Amino acid sequence: MIQVLPSAPGLSAEPAQQKLKIEIFPRRAALFTDRVARIGTEEAFNLGARVAEVEALGERVIRCNLGQPDDPLPRHIADALKRAVDAGLTTYCAPEGIPELRRAVARSLGERHGLDVDPERVVVYPGHRPAIGFAHQAYVEAGDEVVYPSPGYPLYESFIPYFRATPVPAVLREEDGFALTRAIFEPLLSARTSLIFLNFPSNPTGSVATRAQLRELAELILERSGPNARVFSDESYEAINFDGHEHVSIASIPGMESRTIISSGCSKTYSWTGGRVGWAVYPTVAEARVARRLAINHFASIPPYNQWAAVEALTSPLSAPAIREMVKGFQRRRDLVVSGLNAIREFRCHTPTGAFYAFPNVSGALERIDAFGAHAGLPEEVRGRTSPATLFQLFLLHEYRVATVDRRSFSLRGSEGQHFLRLSTAAPAADLEEAVRRMGAAAADAAGFRRFVASGARLTLS
Amino acid sequence: MIQVLPSAPGLSAEPAQQKLKIEIFPRRAALFTDRVARIGTEEAFNLGARVAEVEALGERVIRCNLGQPDDPLPRHIADALKRAVDAGLTTYCAPEGIPELRRAVARSLGERHGLDVDPERVVVYPGHRPAIGFAHQAYVEAGDEVVYPSPGYPLYESFIPYFRATPVPAVLREEDGFALTRAIFEPLLSARTSLIFLNFPSNPTGSVATRAQLRELAELILERSGPNARVFSDESYEAINFDGHEHVSIASIPGMESRTIISSGCSKTYSWTGGRVGWAVYPTVAEARVARRLAINHFASIPPYNQWAAVEALTSPLSAPAIREMVKGFQRRRDLVVSGLNAIREFRCHTPTGAFYAFPNVSGALERIDAFGAHAGLPEEVRGRTSPATLFQLFLLHEYRVATVDRRSFSLRGSEGQHFLRLSTAAPAADLEEAVRRMGAAAADAAGFRRFVASGARLTLS
Repeated sequence: MIQVLPSAPGLSAEPAQQKLKIEIFPRRAALFTDRVARIGTEEAFNLGARVAEVEALGERVIRCNLGQPDDPLPRHIADALKRAVDAGLTTYCAPEGIPELRRAVARSLGERHGLDVDPERVVVYPGHRPAIGFAHQAYVEAGDEVVYPSPGYPLYESFIPYFRATPVPAVLREEDGFALTRAIFEPLLSARTSLIFLNFPSNPTGSVATRAQLRELAELILERSGPNARVFSDESYEAINFDGHEHVSIASIPGMESRTIISSGCSKTYSWTGGRVGWAVYPTVAEARVARRLAINHFASIPPYNQWAAVEALTSPLSAPAIREMVKGFQRRRDLVVSGLNAIREFRCHTPTGAFYAFPNVSGALERIDAFGAHAGLPEEVRGRTSPATLFQLFLLHEYRVATVDRRSFSLRGSEGQHFLRLSTAAPAADLEEAVRRMGAAAADAAGFRRFVASGARLTLS
Repeated sequence: MIQVLPSAPGLSAEPAQQKLKIEIFPRRAALFTDRVARIGTEEAFNLGARVAEVEALGERVIRCNLGQPDDPLPRHIADALKRAVDAGLTTYCAPEGIPELRRAVARSLGERHGLDVDPERVVVYPGHRPAIGFAHQAYVEAGDEVVYPSPGYPLYESFIPYFRATPVPAVLREEDGFALTRAIFEPLLSARTSLIFLNFPSNPTGSVATRAQLRELAELILERSGPNARVFSDESYEAINFDGHEHVSIASIPGMESRTIISSGCSKTYSWTGGRVGWAVYPTVAEARVARRLAINHFASIPPYNQWAAVEALTSPLSAPAIREMVKGFQRRRDLVVSGLNAIREFRCHTPTGAFYAFPNVSGALERIDAFGAHAGLPEEVRGRTSPATLFQLFLLHEYRVATVDRRSFSLRGSEGQHFLRLSTAAPAADLEEAVRRMGAAAADAAGFRRFVASGARLTLS
């Protein structure tokens, strides 16, 4: 049972440190706590203002930076949302989510992965981000080790220093197709591992683990980490697989359901990033109850009408054809972008098998325009906040009006020496073709790049 | 500038402790972190399941437990929401909120309080709860003191032990009309105070501070706490004032705008608790940026269509008459409940001047049915998790089918010896009359209460 521990006024939780503080100065000089300086961010959110700045000069930017499908929210889901508003489902509801949605999530996992999920293990969130922070809050003590992919979704890494845990990046390599191999994974696991982030299909690489690969990872996890270590399986892109592949959840590997938090939501599957409907499925009801308590403290619940629309999304027969169409469109555009990039000597692009990103190696371009030299020549304070690929990203944005995201934005640790950009393929085909053309032109524009860097402005994202 | 601090794998933030762990056992035996055992909750959320349990036996419960207006969401706001969905405003948006809503919030504060608010100081949240947690994250170090009202909204107290700060409850007294007087407030402030929660109109007491009272509080704050101490002014009930009173924000007292975080939202003002639209206005743009970074990490943004509906709520001329009607209805029902309770010898109810709660002293009832004796006779483990008023609350619910909330749910510290229940007046007048009648009957049913307690079940909320 969880209880609020009483603590009397005047009694500090850290008496020694407190005493020191009193002796030297009555209250710290800083307005902000130390901890807020330790939290990361998602740099992609800062690109919006940059894009607006460029467009204010008069020309449209091709946005390949956004992680959101460009199909509209399917009609049947929008209609369900509006029906729920009309029915007055606009008041407080259960903080763990309405039972109908928790049941729909549980059933869907059963149908797709053969799991027998108690709906009491499901907790509904405003998107899948709260599940990431809550996993740190609930499972990670200072000094614990947290394993996560690099390149990977930036919020895995963001919380680790915040909770004074030790970041253990699993640095993925292009030559492995960005797979999380045994050779990479095995040395990272230890008895001190408390949380392991996995993300298939992966953002930003688009790589997908096969059942055989997941079985190998599972074996290592069961063998090398303790029974309290948790896998956070981010399955946000579960619906977007190419070439006939089907999504496999690591929770369906024998022995793993009791170790795995499955996290997903409506954003990518139903082209509904603005709905902020996500969920996590915990190994046990007790863990879901802890998550519920954190949800009560942090946001109470999410709008019930959004949840009813999510129930429609998960249960309507109209959803499957909408998803099929969307995935077909993404596969077509993946082919277009990957082959377009590979036709340019300065780029090399691995073929993703899921999600809707291309993640080309831009080393050739960086060499040709001498971005490495330009980066090395920056003042130290600037150099540490950017990278050769970041300089190319910003050059592309400001001079060629193509918005992409740099490697550095997808886990800082392990990014050194990796020279990639992420392009979202959720844009019209004609725009994508033009974007690739412009990237090729930028890669040949050494003089333009020199001028851009020499201006000294806009060389970092933050 | 905020930066992620690098930290190498294998290097612990707490080397000494880490070493000890390795020597004794490789990984702590507990699944959950220590910190989750230190966070509180809002007990009111656990009442839903209890109410359902009672109703499963066949009879309807009168729900005076919920903190939500019973008027429907005004038509023009619902329509704006649906229009935004139809317009495809269902994708990601700025994490700090759409500019239109931030501007509307800033303008509204200008019009009502004469403040000149830069919209860049406004951050939009899923309800007002994130602002509470974020204020702790951003301003409160371990050992700092956090001042908050008791009785008060439970989430102020909830986070304090979580962040290893020192809870400093401002214990309000019935004989003062639950006002935060100089005598109560002055001794609580110190150079170690980093956060001060104020809440007018108040939940659960319905008390409202006049401008003169706020001026007195402001004087003390400016005099006795440091320049980095922040006031968190929870103004969620700002629109619900009775007897012709107008809401005053402490930020409008000279010297206070630069110290005050103003927090509010759409839940109570527009009868839209399920919209989860809230916001906070920070003293400076720099503070709003820190809040934005926390928002990116915790939930990215709230649905844009909800924000567009909030813009309609804040700017439409149709809103003022809807609010007026709602407040008139609450005042009428306040009178009904307060006079009804005061007509019963076992209750004494102060007249609230805002919000939509009655907060009667039930000591007389507790004496008559000997709830004090019953409480004292409970096994120690149970006694510590309940109170005489909680026993009466549960007796009322299970045997008289009236749901209320006990004093203990509104800040644990300072609740000892205070014997109150909170009744929401957001229920039909006939129901409220019947609820008061049943409370009177329960207060006279010593034998029934003895049986209820003797059963040994359902004597605590958690």
